[in-house]
Amino acid sequence: MRGGIRFRFDFSLVGESNLSSGEGISAADFRCAMEQVDRAVEALEAKRLRGEIGFPDLPFLAPEARAIAGDAKALMKKYTHLLVLGIGGSALGTRAVYEAVGGAAARRGLALSVADNVDPDAFFPLIAAHPMKKTLVVAISKSGGTAETNAQLSIAIAALKKAVGKRWKEQLILVTDPEKGVFRRMAEAEGLQSYAVPPNVGGRFSVLTPVGLLPLSAAGVRIGALLDGAAQMESVFRHTKGTDNPVRFAAAVYAHYLYQVPKPVQVWFTYGAGLDRVAEWWQQLWGESLGKKRACGSPVGQTPARALGVTDQHSQVQLYQDGPADKVFTFVRWSAGREKGIVPRAGFAPDMAMLGGRPLRDLFDAEFEGTIGALWAAGRPIVRMEIGARDEEHVGAFLHFWEWVTAIVGECAGIDPFDQPGVEEGKKIARALMGERGSEERRAEFDRRIAGIRRAEIRIGEDPPARKGRR
Amino acid sequence: MRGGIRFRFDFSLVGESNLSSGEGISAADFRCAMEQVDRAVEALEAKRLRGEIGFPDLPFLAPEARAIAGDAKALMKKYTHLLVLGIGGSALGTRAVYEAVGGAAARRGLALSVADNVDPDAFFPLIAAHPMKKTLVVAISKSGGTAETNAQLSIAIAALKKAVGKRWKEQLILVTDPEKGVFRRMAEAEGLQSYAVPPNVGGRFSVLTPVGLLPLSAAGVRIGALLDGAAQMESVFRHTKGTDNPVRFAAAVYAHYLYQVPKPVQVWFTYGAGLDRVAEWWQQLWGESLGKKRACGSPVGQTPARALGVTDQHSQVQLYQDGPADKVFTFVRWSAGREKGIVPRAGFAPDMAMLGGRPLRDLFDAEFEGTIGALWAAGRPIVRMEIGARDEEHVGAFLHFWEWVTAIVGECAGIDPFDQPGVEEGKKIARALMGERGSEERRAEFDRRIAGIRRAEIRIGEDPPARKGRR
Repeated sequence: MRGGIRFRFDFSLVGESNLSSGEGISAADFRCAMEQVDRAVEALEAKRLRGEIGFPDLPFLAPEARAIAGDAKALMKKYTHLLVLGIGGSALGTRAVYEAVGGAAARRGLALSVADNVDPDAFFPLIAAHPMKKTLVVAISKSGGTAETNAQLSIAIAALKKAVGKRWKEQLILVTDPEKGVFRRMAEAEGLQSYAVPPNVGGRFSVLTPVGLLPLSAAGVRIGALLDGAAQMESVFRHTKGTDNPVRFAAAVYAHYLYQVPKPVQVWFTYGAGLDRVAEWWQQLWGESLGKKRACGSPVGQTPARALGVTDQHSQVQLYQDGPADKVFTFVRWSAGREKGIVPRAGFAPDMAMLGGRPLRDLFDAEFEGTIGALWAAGRPIVRMEIGARDEEHVGAFLHFWEWVTAIVGECAGIDPFDQPGVEEGKKIARALMGERGSEERRAEFDRRIAGIRRAEIRIGEDPPARKGRR
Repeated sequence: MRGGIRFRFDFSLVGESNLSSGEGISAADFRCAMEQVDRAVEALEAKRLRGEIGFPDLPFLAPEARAIAGDAKALMKKYTHLLVLGIGGSALGTRAVYEAVGGAAARRGLALSVADNVDPDAFFPLIAAHPMKKTLVVAISKSGGTAETNAQLSIAIAALKKAVGKRWKEQLILVTDPEKGVFRRMAEAEGLQSYAVPPNVGGRFSVLTPVGLLPLSAAGVRIGALLDGAAQMESVFRHTKGTDNPVRFAAAVYAHYLYQVPKPVQVWFTYGAGLDRVAEWWQQLWGESLGKKRACGSPVGQTPARALGVTDQHSQVQLYQDGPADKVFTFVRWSAGREKGIVPRAGFAPDMAMLGGRPLRDLFDAEFEGTIGALWAAGRPIVRMEIGARDEEHVGAFLHFWEWVTAIVGECAGIDPFDQPGVEEGKKIARALMGERGSEERRAEFDRRIAGIRRAEIRIGEDPPARKGRR
């Protein structure tokens, strides 16, 4: 530990007495939420002890991380580029950490690309841009059954074969379930290198497994420090009581706005390079964990929205300020930035003179405070989070903090924060439309339903090219 | 006109009879919305004739565009790089069009960067990465009073002076109000090249003024074709009656979901390279135009959310599918893509065999249809939009379409879609915090209010470095 983590979590602007609008949390509601949080933590602890959830213990797998870092060091000597194939939880954590610590400019390692789409107009050019002789491909799918990643992998293998012939197997690593699935069978049949994802850790909670650790380490990120930061946060969580515990406090606040007095939208307003990628990671964590049907009562879920400071002040703040009171705001920034550059004093008109002769950061910071101040004056509930430094310890701690908050809030809401039943239907239809064997009846039923809809369609010009057998 | 524009707007899945959930629009509600649309169009036409709104007539300014294209041609010979300084409406339209038509890979012109933030950790490295001797700087602020752009400009001028001395003035162009403001005075005092933004066109409606046309043209985009496409859409709008008019139909649908039976969130789910940048442009247009207080009744506004297909199927679809019924969806794609690459047949496990031996695009398209199909089965209201081709004509037409829809929906809602009063408060506070002369009382009052709040703050570790005089 190099000095320890430093964070500041400020919940003042969700307090009832500080908000003119009535959107604040009353003392009674907060007590109620904290009681629910306490029960939720107990329930989650029981699940952890039964081995059902694995994410809380990941920070303590330092030996595994050291082994991965050793492997990564060897890979760095052999290759120049690293192409990760994966989607959702297999992509977002890696990209978030990498960009949060400064990306290629800040860490020396393989040049990292994360391919998380199958848009042909994006994927083929990306493959073509890689020097395949010096490229390591890491394909990640926990189940092994992700259609997108399988398609990507097939194309990448062809490119590797074209570049290096039979040695393609050396340049490919699979990260997947330890026993089951297409990827595991493939790794065994072809004798490929592979890493295992613990079965009790879901995709969106998996950044501290080989899913994130292997590519991050090969890209030059200090994964030991990443785990160490998460371990420090885990320790704070385990050993801090009641309302002094930032995880429990945050969970109570967000549980309130998720379902006690629901706000349909949570906005993450990030001020600081790399944090927008952390926000993308959070969007999956929050949206997919907490957007659920409930056994009793109406569905729950909050749309996670990203806003980039200061840019989106000139895009979204009008809505935030004057629009419906349907949002809770989380402002996130680094406590200190790297760049100290100055705005020159010369040449300003009198009404802009306050800009000159001082760091550009002063303006950036003033805009942060000004935006919070204005939203506060409009009565909006706001949480402020400041991250003490832009490094692996702090990023690891911050992600771990949010994994806990998400898990607890979901448990409070009476849903399973670790499943995602709602993504299956679309996958099944897509596979049926692709002509999957055994899905003929599903396809036929889908076509029947579509034939029955009443059309309301307007075309301009000639028809766009027909698309296979679809409306 | 090269063959004319081709679009397909499909409103079938907002029809009451096609949605199991009750989230569809009843025939009576639709008639009511269409009547409001008709009145709104009349009111906007009167404003146009009075010269209050200028965006509808921009597509017909072809001579001005030809002059700009001529200037751009000369600039292309002198420079290699183009750095746009601007924020909000001064940045988003340019970036949207540029990426939509394919970006640097598809258009030969100056290498375009758009700097729309004052994050020092992003801005200084961007400046440093530019070869300033061969860089044209275009600073854009309609009012001239945007603090961010003034600060950027000051830094850029210093970099130009360092690179080329007194000739810095040749490498700088200002785009601003024809008569007023800091930028206009600066252009006159220093003898800088400048272009005028029509006073009756607001920032978010200004992509077809020099705000967008100048940088786009210098970056190799065919701005004549851009205007031509918009003109074709304007013609469709003006000359098509009733429910055959795609603008009026869309405006009625979105007005319904904005305030008749409000959905707090509209999701743009884009499938196709470049469309995510168009979605960013739309986020400002929709959020800032329609997020408003109202003279009578509650505030109006809909949070514009972006989702990227297929990537965000693995991040947000769980929420969309199973979460609260608080969203309307707009799916957008190109009718046809460029890249025809194939997924190799070999090596698939039996349950993935349907992927092999066919274009990757088939999977991309099947995921598009599968996601729509699943959300439809869950009862969600969905609009489908297909854009006939990825070129200037179609992009110009599409942006113009959305400007009209936004204006009409705002007019229907009884608000002014062209103002943005809610962004002023934050700016004022930021300027006061920067020590603006004359704002001392505002600053003092702000500090007093902050001193009065009840703190709820949790710190981990030592304090982050203190920040000047702020909480």
